[in-house]
Amino acid sequence: MDVKVLRLDHRRVRDARITTHVCLTARAFGASSVFLGGDHDKKLMENVQDVAKRWGGSFQIDYQKYWDNLLEEWKNNGGEIVHLTMYGEPVQKVVPEIRGSKKDKLVVVGASRVPTEVYQKSDWNVAVTNQPHSEVSALAIFLHLLFDGQEFYLEFDGGDIKVLPSAKGKRVLMDKEH
Amino acid sequence: MDVKVLRLDHRRVRDARITTHVCLTARAFGASSVFLGGDHDKKLMENVQDVAKRWGGSFQIDYQKYWDNLLEEWKNNGGEIVHLTMYGEPVQKVVPEIRGSKKDKLVVVGASRVPTEVYQKSDWNVAVTNQPHSEVSALAIFLHLLFDGQEFYLEFDGGDIKVLPSAKGKRVLMDKEH
Repeated sequence: MDVKVLRLDHRRVRDARITTHVCLTARAFGASSVFLGGDHDKKLMENVQDVAKRWGGSFQIDYQKYWDNLLEEWKNNGGEIVHLTMYGEPVQKVVPEIRGSKKDKLVVVGASRVPTEVYQKSDWNVAVTNQPHSEVSALAIFLHLLFDGQEFYLEFDGGDIKVLPSAKGKRVLMDKEH
Repeated sequence: MDVKVLRLDHRRVRDARITTHVCLTARAFGASSVFLGGDHDKKLMENVQDVAKRWGGSFQIDYQKYWDNLLEEWKNNGGEIVHLTMYGEPVQKVVPEIRGSKKDKLVVVGASRVPTEVYQKSDWNVAVTNQPHSEVSALAIFLHLLFDGQEFYLEFDGGDIKVLPSAKGKRVLMDKEH
């Protein structure tokens, strides 16, 4: 199952750090790419691509001006859509069903206001708690439950940097030959 | 087990939204309070308190100028310290041990550079993956694993707003009498 993330309605200055955290969380938790909606933020995309290159793996980020077209196209290609929203159904209730369907998943992560159409076109509207917190934590928890903890064992090949787990310090493997 | 969060080295403008997401994630995932280190950011603290009041529960946020004193005091009072860092040991490996010890936990969430002393004084340095992503997602995943998913069933009493889960829309219960 391929999992991609759509970040709706990014605003260049206001959302730069949150959207960056959304993208890096998507990568670290096993999504293969992010589509950036809203402002075309070249600097953010370059930053994310730079991290992805240095840390390995094949994560992509692409700009997507027309999110509604993307939703249509995704469904026409046989994929399913999961919209993360605090108004949705409890993640712990619906994730077994979502995991059970092996179709590719587009995970939609909103900004301040999400159009009604997104709720309607999504196969699942999923709440990671019904409390206000963060699209970053919602995405992390959703992917963690979707992949059932297997994302902890992902390998990111071909990067220059690798952290080696350590109880009390920092152990980093630098590989400049790539 | 009482769990509190220490946010190190908050910078008023640069970190406002990320730190807000850290605080709201702490609340939604079952921590009882956040200590804010770094800049004294009155506006941020008021925002978080306002959300906590409207959405219920007893979450607190307090300013803590001297994080090193807090670490000392926490240990002297019999608590344990968990530092979330990408350089630490895998969360999936160490969380059973952390959960097994019933002492109160202070979860330390860093900013850009974390002093060596934090690594040394922590009982556990814990990595939520060894990839770069976000202190927001690291905190969410750590608390989710620590509480073993029970945080999904938390009740936040006494607020004015409550979201009722919904498959396709928004159902919100407003209670202005509180």
